[in-house]
Amino acid sequence: MAESMTLLWCSGSEPCWRVMITLEEKNLQGYNQKLLSYEKKEHKSEEVLALNPRGQLPTFKHGDTIVNESYAACFYLESQFKSQGTTLIPESSEEQALMYQRMFEGLAFYEKLNAVIYYEYFVPEGERHESALTRNKQALTTELNLWEGYLSKLLPNSYLAGPSFSLADVTVFPTVAFLFRFGLSAERYPKLGEYYALLKERPSVKASWPPLWHDNPQGHDKLKEI
Amino acid sequence: MAESMTLLWCSGSEPCWRVMITLEEKNLQGYNQKLLSYEKKEHKSEEVLALNPRGQLPTFKHGDTIVNESYAACFYLESQFKSQGTTLIPESSEEQALMYQRMFEGLAFYEKLNAVIYYEYFVPEGERHESALTRNKQALTTELNLWEGYLSKLLPNSYLAGPSFSLADVTVFPTVAFLFRFGLSAERYPKLGEYYALLKERPSVKASWPPLWHDNPQGHDKLKEI
Repeated sequence: MAESMTLLWCSGSEPCWRVMITLEEKNLQGYNQKLLSYEKKEHKSEEVLALNPRGQLPTFKHGDTIVNESYAACFYLESQFKSQGTTLIPESSEEQALMYQRMFEGLAFYEKLNAVIYYEYFVPEGERHESALTRNKQALTTELNLWEGYLSKLLPNSYLAGPSFSLADVTVFPTVAFLFRFGLSAERYPKLGEYYALLKERPSVKASWPPLWHDNPQGHDKLKEI
Repeated sequence: MAESMTLLWCSGSEPCWRVMITLEEKNLQGYNQKLLSYEKKEHKSEEVLALNPRGQLPTFKHGDTIVNESYAACFYLESQFKSQGTTLIPESSEEQALMYQRMFEGLAFYEKLNAVIYYEYFVPEGERHESALTRNKQALTTELNLWEGYLSKLLPNSYLAGPSFSLADVTVFPTVAFLFRFGLSAERYPKLGEYYALLKERPSVKASWPPLWHDNPQGHDKLKEI
């Protein structure tokens, strides 16, 4: 199966990582892959644009089917390979509800993180305001406290949607990993720290760990004071 | 079934509308509902916050299960009532892939629309820049042309993910309706206009049409020049 799949990706991209974790969990190792450079703007190359008019990574193809949006690819792979590897959508309606809820809250989490760590990247120099960055940091702090609260009711016995690892973990874990890569204090956010420590040892996560982070294990300190 | 459901919503909210269309399509009419006022900040009331710590609408409850994020609620309802009403996730893998892909592209569409029509709402006065608004408008134009392209391959015989109405339509249609509510030209974007005209006659859409739009059929002209 995996031979008919191609993933174009870049290192240190949360959306790419979500798809890679899913591929590992569904035992789809051996897919074709190409690591592209974001800095060299290879996500805007003809190769990518032919499959993905948005010029974004991941770009993912299975046979003739193209599914580029990371959440879409995760849902698609789980649906196509339901009985292979880890079941990523739980059976019980309660866990399912929580999984969907946390997955989509995960998008707000991801955006609030990006609005702080990539503020200078997103906002041109002449349009930056200290007040905006301060507001973004406050929004991220509120968000972090929400997730601390969620996790405090779950850990150490449970994943984000219940006793089994699910698409909620697939989609939210990369955001949590980025938090710590950017210097978040596990003392101030102990539950997020515990969740991070637990998940980073998972084989699917280890197998898809961003190569840039292997090459340079030292992270950043942008979130040290958050 | 519907008697054990409660939806807290406000008029003229795309996320609320997605859930309401889904409830209609799944024949879940008769659910408890409460129309709240965004202007009076009722989304930050204790009633909402008790169910939704984000203080956002929709806030949705089914029995003891809370699913507030609109995409999450749509997925949850389809999963719980699979064989009731319209099947909103198609069977074929090709249509499913396209449905997921368009649903999640729909989030970018929604954000790009909001970044134009609600620019003054989102950005405090002292932080506004003509250059930013111009860039947001360009991004929206690019996005509109993408969807014109998608629809030109589908209409008049097909919905967003193929021959049957799906969650892609449920989640993206409200964005399209807002475009025209805010003055988009159906002459300049004929395929979006055709899609809008087709879908707005659908019973689930008519039954959930924003009451504010009924009361005041005259829209805005913010997108007239886009």
